[in-house]
Amino acid sequence: MGLNKPLYDELSVGMKGPLNLITDVPGVTVGHSTIKTEQINTGVTAILPQTSNLFQSKLPAAAHIINGFGKSVGLIQINELGSLETPILLTNTFAVGTAMNALIKYMLNQNADIGDTTCTVNPLVLECNDGTINDIRAMAIQELHVNQAIASVEHTFAEGAIGAGTGMCCYGLKGGIGSASRQVVIDGLPFTIGSLVLSNFGSLRDLNIYGCPIGTKLHPFFKENEEVEKGSILVILATDLPLDHRQLTRLCKRSSVGISRTGAFIGNGSGEIALAFSTANRIPHASTTMLTTHVSLHESVMDSLFRATASVVEESVLSSLIHADATVDRQGRPIHSFCDAMKALQAEQPDAQVAFLMDKLGLSIT
Amino acid sequence: MGLNKPLYDELSVGMKGPLNLITDVPGVTVGHSTIKTEQINTGVTAILPQTSNLFQSKLPAAAHIINGFGKSVGLIQINELGSLETPILLTNTFAVGTAMNALIKYMLNQNADIGDTTCTVNPLVLECNDGTINDIRAMAIQELHVNQAIASVEHTFAEGAIGAGTGMCCYGLKGGIGSASRQVVIDGLPFTIGSLVLSNFGSLRDLNIYGCPIGTKLHPFFKENEEVEKGSILVILATDLPLDHRQLTRLCKRSSVGISRTGAFIGNGSGEIALAFSTANRIPHASTTMLTTHVSLHESVMDSLFRATASVVEESVLSSLIHADATVDRQGRPIHSFCDAMKALQAEQPDAQVAFLMDKLGLSIT
Amino acid sequence: MGLNKPLYDELSVGMKGPLNLITDVPGVTVGHSTIKTEQINTGVTAILPQTSNLFQSKLPAAAHIINGFGKSVGLIQINELGSLETPILLTNTFAVGTAMNALIKYMLNQNADIGDTTCTVNPLVLECNDGTINDIRAMAIQELHVNQAIASVEHTFAEGAIGAGTGMCCYGLKGGIGSASRQVVIDGLPFTIGSLVLSNFGSLRDLNIYGCPIGTKLHPFFKENEEVEKGSILVILATDLPLDHRQLTRLCKRSSVGISRTGAFIGNGSGEIALAFSTANRIPHASTTMLTTHVSLHESVMDSLFRATASVVEESVLSSLIHADATVDRQGRPIHSFCDAMKALQAEQPDAQVAFLMDKLGLSIT
Amino acid sequence: MGLNKPLYDELSVGMKGPLNLITDVPGVTVGHSTIKTEQINTGVTAILPQTSNLFQSKLPAAAHIINGFGKSVGLIQINELGSLETPILLTNTFAVGTAMNALIKYMLNQNADIGDTTCTVNPLVLECNDGTINDIRAMAIQELHVNQAIASVEHTFAEGAIGAGTGMCCYGLKGGIGSASRQVVIDGLPFTIGSLVLSNFGSLRDLNIYGCPIGTKLHPFFKENEEVEKGSILVILATDLPLDHRQLTRLCKRSSVGISRTGAFIGNGSGEIALAFSTANRIPHASTTMLTTHVSLHESVMDSLFRATASVVEESVLSSLIHADATVDRQGRPIHSFCDAMKALQAEQPDAQVAFLMDKLGLSIT
Repeated sequence: MGLNKPLYDELSVGMKGPLNLITDVPGVTVGHSTIKTEQINTGVTAILPQTSNLFQSKLPAAAHIINGFGKSVGLIQINELGSLETPILLTNTFAVGTAMNALIKYMLNQNADIGDTTCTVNPLVLECNDGTINDIRAMAIQELHVNQAIASVEHTFAEGAIGAGTGMCCYGLKGGIGSASRQVVIDGLPFTIGSLVLSNFGSLRDLNIYGCPIGTKLHPFFKENEEVEKGSILVILATDLPLDHRQLTRLCKRSSVGISRTGAFIGNGSGEIALAFSTANRIPHASTTMLTTHVSLHESVMDSLFRATASVVEESVLSSLIHADATVDRQGRPIHSFCDAMKALQAEQPDAQVAFLMDKLGLSIT
Repeated sequence: MGLNKPLYDELSVGMKGPLNLITDVPGVTVGHSTIKTEQINTGVTAILPQTSNLFQSKLPAAAHIINGFGKSVGLIQINELGSLETPILLTNTFAVGTAMNALIKYMLNQNADIGDTTCTVNPLVLECNDGTINDIRAMAIQELHVNQAIASVEHTFAEGAIGAGTGMCCYGLKGGIGSASRQVVIDGLPFTIGSLVLSNFGSLRDLNIYGCPIGTKLHPFFKENEEVEKGSILVILATDLPLDHRQLTRLCKRSSVGISRTGAFIGNGSGEIALAFSTANRIPHASTTMLTTHVSLHESVMDSLFRATASVVEESVLSSLIHADATVDRQGRPIHSFCDAMKALQAEQPDAQVAFLMDKLGLSIT
Repeated sequence: MGLNKPLYDELSVGMKGPLNLITDVPGVTVGHSTIKTEQINTGVTAILPQTSNLFQSKLPAAAHIINGFGKSVGLIQINELGSLETPILLTNTFAVGTAMNALIKYMLNQNADIGDTTCTVNPLVLECNDGTINDIRAMAIQELHVNQAIASVEHTFAEGAIGAGTGMCCYGLKGGIGSASRQVVIDGLPFTIGSLVLSNFGSLRDLNIYGCPIGTKLHPFFKENEEVEKGSILVILATDLPLDHRQLTRLCKRSSVGISRTGAFIGNGSGEIALAFSTANRIPHASTTMLTTHVSLHESVMDSLFRATASVVEESVLSSLIHADATVDRQGRPIHSFCDAMKALQAEQPDAQVAFLMDKLGLSIT
Repeated sequence: MGLNKPLYDELSVGMKGPLNLITDVPGVTVGHSTIKTEQINTGVTAILPQTSNLFQSKLPAAAHIINGFGKSVGLIQINELGSLETPILLTNTFAVGTAMNALIKYMLNQNADIGDTTCTVNPLVLECNDGTINDIRAMAIQELHVNQAIASVEHTFAEGAIGAGTGMCCYGLKGGIGSASRQVVIDGLPFTIGSLVLSNFGSLRDLNIYGCPIGTKLHPFFKENEEVEKGSILVILATDLPLDHRQLTRLCKRSSVGISRTGAFIGNGSGEIALAFSTANRIPHASTTMLTTHVSLHESVMDSLFRATASVVEESVLSSLIHADATVDRQGRPIHSFCDAMKALQAEQPDAQVAFLMDKLGLSIT
């Protein structure tokens, strides 16, 4: 649900949607499956772009690689054909194969023609490395966990250390799932841009919120969290605006602006990938007529959408931090929550800027 | 071993290597695992670029998407970092997840640091859809088949309907694994470019060999093989030339010339992907010094390498046809072998051009 | 007008258009300006995609770099915005700057708002190096030549050694401008794909026509023409099919199949670039409403368009050869025409395959 | 010379170089040519990557398109061949053709072989639209201005409203040329990364400096400067680190982080392009031996270079603002300088944050 007090951004075209979640885009639902034991802390998050049969009625989509240190699958075909034909799965790096298998079976169950009388299907699975908190070498995710995530999709969903976000770290603090939304009005009609991120990137010293270099203030107190960057961030953008593949690609590129605003610099080891889809024009798998009509959007409106994208992605990252609870890493060292860290800092060393920030983020000091 | 009579190409710089296989590049080995039952006809082919630990000592590599209607994994990171750190697996489209899992475990067994004290690993798995011959929906490939393929790698290996090639169709005939090699001399030193393809593309009418539109002659006799293109072709290029990532990308692009020479036109549904690696300069996973020395190759020599690449890929496709035995598809209809089809054509309708072609390909009429 | 006997291609969806030129696409016109003196042999060719004001009403477009050893300008913006807003100019490498200047002035004259109350304009100028025949260092093209080419556009136009083609060499013979067209029927409606090439690539030994390696037969007779490849080929594709930017990109990629069929291998020094535009959906520069409706085309029809593209580009290259007259290079050595070379070969060494080829190309021996 | 007080960035690896300019990279020089009349306010800036003959001894280079709404030329070949062979010119959008012509002639004068016995040359000209201040339709730049810029290169050079920066606007204020440098130590050896920007992008309300949203404070006072974004930003990165083409591409991508830190969001109409070159390994145009040895850099050091790139580009943008003097636009409306605007704001409405910022930037209030 993004921030309690949504990101103050008077320049953006629109306000947040009713839930301030990616599910404000009509038809989008999200579900989680979480495994939490002493050594295993990981999970799966499923995004259903629409509840209808996606293979038979595909969506315009595009993927953009900000930094390709990552193992996500399905992006090549999305960029060739410009369409999305399965749910989107997020999970840990070594669970991609299992998630593919489960997603293929899910699609085969829905579509008797796939791999028989028609072509195969392109499963989309995105990943981050949760190896700091999770024993990723154990490869604990089973197909049932994927099925659970897909089966549990709802209009509302939890953020933070849940589903694929269970074991993720962001700016040296606990990260995970974050989401937000923006409403824009085009030709008098309301539309929504929603974002969901899986945040697992950044060093604490770099964290910057609303222009405050809060990471440099937090860092002296939490030095034990220091380690070599091995994270990533995935961004899913959903919209009911009639954007085509090329325009969705352009939208994806602006997600890097939102990420940069939180302080990171696209680290060498950070797999940063954005995927965007539109629910406005459907692409039938098979069609008796080849010529159809699509609604399209004039390029001159893109600036307002780019602003909204940068803003909604920035807020999604912050929301992932604010909603994630503290935990410990595989060695038993604490991975602090952003909220706890802020309160501890303020208790130890009161600072007007920090107080202002906490107020702006809707955090209470006590 | 390519063709009995290797591709006659007086313009190419070099001759074929001793085996006329990708394994003529020193250190490269190939192995197969095959499943053949009534409904299941599929398999795995493994290419070990070097026998040493690839994760600790990576190879320069590049991937190029000729047409992105495909589900191969691992390419994004290869193009970001310019390096290959695992064996290469070829299999059917719905076995990619299982192959990833097996390959990750293989790498974890070799490297205790992966996912623990260092980053994760980027498994490379390429695929074609063998659904015409194989019940791909059964998802029959298990991890043990992948392990078998890796365990069975050798300097010599079979081509045709074996390993990942078991269920593949090419130009409406039986396709599969094909390979060839070329030797070039640079600054007085001998080098090799090797190619291995998994051929699963093309319509019979389009088949063209050495400029002879043989497909239009074969087609009237084998019309039952007609169906909508749902194939693909994968090309693996190996070399001991010191090419860097950018130059390997350029090499990959010329594989499409070799493919085009056999008659196809990069069909809409054909996932065509080329991957190239060089064994000349090693990239250590970790290094105490950041500055090192690499051997590099002047760009002006590229034309001779481009010619060799087009030629070796063309021959690899032909070799996959020539080495593949006839079979039947899932409906029991025959999938003819190229050699049988040529003989049948010649028996029915003797033709000087066909006789010439058979001689040139080293095929006997009887 | 393509070939007298157009390319025999029973697999392609359609027949040639009425003129067998790119101008069969309604609204497209082409004009030339030619300079021929002893040392200066160069020119400009202008393609007007539509006679209406292109800046105010743009066309969907895409560019694809087959090999980037080239200096063409305007492609970056076309791929970002997916639209073409000026005529297309072809000329020699060192005339690009002058052609840009002339094209900018042409656009400024038409549009008082450019660079004043609205943004600037993106001139599109493509080039090949005609330095073998033309003293390219003299930079002889003036803005008036560009203006003449634009002013002289017509529905019919000459091919061969004219306009930008004046000084170009192709496969060691005289090359230049070639064009052809294909008609396709979609949903019962007729559409056209037209192609125009500026051919300036290839070595004589590589020339291959309809599968006949004619270059290896011509080469012994014309060895003096041997030199290091420094050519290029530009392909312009026009269509009235409602293809979007992504689909036009895919079309562009198939032009390399047509080029490969004529024997070349995408040489290191060959700048190979394809540009495609559609006249079906217009994109207004400014619009009061942001939401509009576009006609779009289902992806499953692409195979027929890809076949037509490969075929029409192949024929355009052959047409450039067939229409180009012999000349001499800067050193006074002959640059033979394809037709003369074929006749000389046949006179000297009669060959059934060559006779067959001449018949097929519509060439008479006398 | 960057900022008087260089950007405070304790996380970056290195300190600023001696001049805090791109010319701290050994061998790099910069020169300007400026035209200032009532209506004409434009110019040319030349960057000589090395004083030696670049065509005969090329430099590794890479270009990255952040947003392709731009008309720069020369980038395609740089990315194909990975090398830079001419000086780099910056100018206004409609002067690109003239700059190309002058640069070609400059190269022809230096190299008698170009276009005669060897291939042509690839001129590199980058541009922004200075149409707000300059009558860009007048196309005032002549070849002599380009020659002057090249002839005037020096180790030290002015920033702000000079050369190509003469007519540029940045965040609604006067922008133009800005530069800075960073020193890094690798394996105990000192290296430099230098940056030069041509800043012509952003809306005043978006300006953000060191986390302070100063644009929202300045905007109410300078509303008249509002207009539709039609700007761009060009970034040139130079280094003596032995980065190859792929690594230089990765460096280029991090320039967008530095830009984002100043508040903009990669606007639709902003042509944002980064070009990077390395002076460490030379690439001879012709070579008798094909195999050579290059120094290379281990990928694990990239994070420190990415930090330095983000920082040096951010400082270059700020430096362009701080060094640019106020002027008027074509309608006579003031285009304020950043320094004047800050002082006026502080005089009218004293603000602790603004005072802090002025101190940090080394600006005195009086």
